[in-house]
Amino acid sequence: MNDGALGLLTLLTDFGTADWYVAAVRGTVLRLAPGARLADISHEVPPGDIETAAFLLAAAAPTFPAGTIHLAVVDPGVGSERRILAVATPAAVFLAPDNGLLTPFLEPGARVRAVDRPDLYLPGPGRTFHGRDRFAPVAAALLRGEPFEALGPELPDPVILPAPPPRRQGRLLLGRVVHVDRYGNLVTDIPADWLPDGPFLAEVAGHATAVRVTHYRELAARPAGTAGVLTGSLGSLELSLDGASLARSWQVRRGVEVRITLDAAVTR
Amino acid sequence: MNDGALGLLTLLTDFGTADWYVAAVRGTVLRLAPGARLADISHEVPPGDIETAAFLLAAAAPTFPAGTIHLAVVDPGVGSERRILAVATPAAVFLAPDNGLLTPFLEPGARVRAVDRPDLYLPGPGRTFHGRDRFAPVAAALLRGEPFEALGPELPDPVILPAPPPRRQGRLLLGRVVHVDRYGNLVTDIPADWLPDGPFLAEVAGHATAVRVTHYRELAARPAGTAGVLTGSLGSLELSLDGASLARSWQVRRGVEVRITLDAAVTR
Amino acid sequence: MNDGALGLLTLLTDFGTADWYVAAVRGTVLRLAPGARLADISHEVPPGDIETAAFLLAAAAPTFPAGTIHLAVVDPGVGSERRILAVATPAAVFLAPDNGLLTPFLEPGARVRAVDRPDLYLPGPGRTFHGRDRFAPVAAALLRGEPFEALGPELPDPVILPAPPPRRQGRLLLGRVVHVDRYGNLVTDIPADWLPDGPFLAEVAGHATAVRVTHYRELAARPAGTAGVLTGSLGSLELSLDGASLARSWQVRRGVEVRITLDAAVTR
Repeated sequence: MNDGALGLLTLLTDFGTADWYVAAVRGTVLRLAPGARLADISHEVPPGDIETAAFLLAAAAPTFPAGTIHLAVVDPGVGSERRILAVATPAAVFLAPDNGLLTPFLEPGARVRAVDRPDLYLPGPGRTFHGRDRFAPVAAALLRGEPFEALGPELPDPVILPAPPPRRQGRLLLGRVVHVDRYGNLVTDIPADWLPDGPFLAEVAGHATAVRVTHYRELAARPAGTAGVLTGSLGSLELSLDGASLARSWQVRRGVEVRITLDAAVTR
Repeated sequence: MNDGALGLLTLLTDFGTADWYVAAVRGTVLRLAPGARLADISHEVPPGDIETAAFLLAAAAPTFPAGTIHLAVVDPGVGSERRILAVATPAAVFLAPDNGLLTPFLEPGARVRAVDRPDLYLPGPGRTFHGRDRFAPVAAALLRGEPFEALGPELPDPVILPAPPPRRQGRLLLGRVVHVDRYGNLVTDIPADWLPDGPFLAEVAGHATAVRVTHYRELAARPAGTAGVLTGSLGSLELSLDGASLARSWQVRRGVEVRITLDAAVTR
Repeated sequence: MNDGALGLLTLLTDFGTADWYVAAVRGTVLRLAPGARLADISHEVPPGDIETAAFLLAAAAPTFPAGTIHLAVVDPGVGSERRILAVATPAAVFLAPDNGLLTPFLEPGARVRAVDRPDLYLPGPGRTFHGRDRFAPVAAALLRGEPFEALGPELPDPVILPAPPPRRQGRLLLGRVVHVDRYGNLVTDIPADWLPDGPFLAEVAGHATAVRVTHYRELAARPAGTAGVLTGSLGSLELSLDGASLARSWQVRRGVEVRITLDAAVTR
């Protein structure tokens, strides 16, 4: 079986849903690979926000069947000389601009290619819509069974997003808010199993909590507005309120530092 | 034929479309039930708004083919001891948290089960994403042909949303605005056939109209800003403007009382 | 093969995604044409905005496979005596209210019918939701193989949107902003090949630029906030900033005039 025989393609873009851009990608794929099945990841990535796209793709892709093709187009450099990247892992194939978006999948053993298939590209007007004119036909070719290796030469130096990893320093756990979700939960990059049982103090943007819970509703028994630290759905620590947005309450955005002090002399 | 053999699954959530949550449900279902076909109802339910989810599902579900499986996840109690509810009617199968969301489908004759299938659940990190870790694999099992009765024991006491029914008191019809749609139409719970021909006065939030029409555009012949009462697409009365939002104009939200006085001495 | 045998139906509406309206159309089509495959164009057309719907459909439809059926419901006159229009071109079949939405497809040779099939219509409550009660069952009939000619009589006088075409007057190119996209790009109706190499001055809403580029990122080498004129993805001229919204910066909305003076004595 080649990589694309399954016929499932996901789409992740910053196109929004009020323009014709997503439809043009869907239409082009369905025109060139009539049997394809499409599934959206999201089209609400903030314009040009490569970090958020990488985060969402890393979170969603592992749930899809082996062999799924993931097409991610957040491409502020569209039309320039930036390359198109194809990455194959044992689980999936990824297509995206070579701008760091696929950083989470550049694992040891991943095969990495610079797509170079002018025979597939469409001569669409202008140079502003490679989603329609280049990414969609390349994805369609994979869906039709084109071998991954035929996409282009190996690429030794794909662009990597700088991402300072979370750290442990003695009694300190240091990380960042890597995502704020619709509910206002603060998703961090600190692995949940770094936080042992026992007292702690978690600080973000001048606010703090010393409460650990296993789910949101558990906070309802606490004084109103009590924030809790819990194990989020990606296995990292998450800070949350029950039934309200902690991001709004604490005025926190993605990227803000998270600092957890263990064994803190804190009354819980 | 078992309940799920049709292979059509709808999704209704409060996840929004900017996170990876809907994609994770889609991916998990497609991984565990590769032949499934998915159709969105909505993912824009306001966070935690169980009443709106119940309303939308009751409005949309009857349009789908018999045998459709409807998965609805608006779940502020996720991770707590709240149960997972499965309801089978002659028309469809419904999965949702046992928090009232399925109230419209708890009709006489409906089969009701508390889902208890730890063998199906996924060991996802944390206890905050049962959509991915429990609802999706249970839906996938139904799609693969798992019998409804095998989901768990009968549940005699599912959670019911309190919903004061509309009333008729002599010359008075009393109800509520049960939905405000994108156009600002006020959907009420008063059956349209309760309003006979003849004069009336409909009052909402201190505003009033005595005009009945059959469609929006008919109001264009009236003085600007005239609100009309009409038969809405669910068979209940609806209050509307032509080409503008009545909800904004009258400052009305879901839940507000609607009072209609029949035979009112009103100049129309 | 008849028009609908392909089984692909696109949906374009102003229903938004927070109501049950899109789901009701999907459900009705899937109930009446179980094998149908659906693809969204957009549901975020501003309420009642027929011009935007026509623009989006004209931009997206050509990417879809030949034989696709496009259902577009932006229908402020729903329930009135406005007709339902069906248009067949060599590329596709279109269904929409007869309100101008299909203007871009009324090309010479297009077959035009007024849909008159009460045998297909559903007796849904009220007259406010023809998307569910008339358009969906007619689309489903086409998907099941109903011949286009059987939809109703020929219609000699479909409603046409007035659209002043762009003009060339000596050294002047005159057009309009026909769309503002999510990124704040100003899409114009001036064909890109009307603008020759050489100096020019493009003016919109009291602002101006004399810079031509081929893609957005090229502007990064210019002074901050420099707007550029480029060939957009539909083959018309587009005005843009790099990484920011020109529509917001220049306070421009759809419909505003665009004036380009060629050979202008402008320092570039």
